[in-house]
Amino acid sequence: MRVLGIDCGSERTGYGVIESDGHDYRLVAFGVIRTNPKTSFDQRLLEIARGLRCQIEQYRPEAAAVEGVFSSVNVRSSLKLAHVRGVALLAIAEAGIELGEYSPLEVKISVVGYGRAEKSQVKMMVRSLLRVPEAIESEDACDALAVAICHAGRHALAHLQGGRV
Amino acid sequence: MRVLGIDCGSERTGYGVIESDGHDYRLVAFGVIRTNPKTSFDQRLLEIARGLRCQIEQYRPEAAAVEGVFSSVNVRSSLKLAHVRGVALLAIAEAGIELGEYSPLEVKISVVGYGRAEKSQVKMMVRSLLRVPEAIESEDACDALAVAICHAGRHALAHLQGGRV
Repeated sequence: MRVLGIDCGSERTGYGVIESDGHDYRLVAFGVIRTNPKTSFDQRLLEIARGLRCQIEQYRPEAAAVEGVFSSVNVRSSLKLAHVRGVALLAIAEAGIELGEYSPLEVKISVVGYGRAEKSQVKMMVRSLLRVPEAIESEDACDALAVAICHAGRHALAHLQGGRV
Repeated sequence: MRVLGIDCGSERTGYGVIESDGHDYRLVAFGVIRTNPKTSFDQRLLEIARGLRCQIEQYRPEAAAVEGVFSSVNVRSSLKLAHVRGVALLAIAEAGIELGEYSPLEVKISVVGYGRAEKSQVKMMVRSLLRVPEAIESEDACDALAVAICHAGRHALAHLQGGRV
């Protein structure tokens, strides 16, 4: 299955596309949608929506995965993030593809096997699982790939538990 | 000028279209986009986006106005609302129309002239300003009309202050 992972952010929204047969993962594409810092917030949302639609059209994923949004110490940031997440969920729904939502804890357990894993450990495991020769510099793209791996892993597990494999 | 007011909500999103010449207001249309309670949140966002695009296409407003979102006691509700607001801001940006954002206080002062006005007073003033013979039953549509009136009033004031009237 082909999965698009999205790491939402008003300044930078990371994305990553992977393919999985239930055992192995393969990297298809990754990148970052950078919005113009000089434009208004609604224009940034438009740039993000267009960027995501473009990736969905190009890579035609069967599923998309995003992290949930939780109230952090900085409520203002969480509210801003929720706007971007609304736009991402809309782009996914418009494309009619399956949606998976996971907490940061679920993503870390899926990728590293340990909920309190450091960012550097997640980065290393994403690179190792996808057999990427060079380091993935962008943290946003790496987080997007991690949530995509989490979804593909959960999907494979659900099939196993359903006795289909 | 023709203004679309939007009152965001995941279950019910109110909208109202008014016209203003800087002195008088005229009601054009109002209504509520009700989402299917049995569908997932991303599907609801899709219904809201489609509903708003439909109104924008039909009434071709020159400006749109929405209330800001603030962290309330119920952070979970605020985060949900911010997702819907993201989708509304996107629909406005996609249509290329002017956007006005106001706090609930600004809306009340604009419509009633008093920041601590009760909901019933706002409702009465909206009806009076738009010369609507019957009561506007929906609170969501009424709130949407109120924010549209607020924007039209601010716009007229800006023109006055600019010495153009």
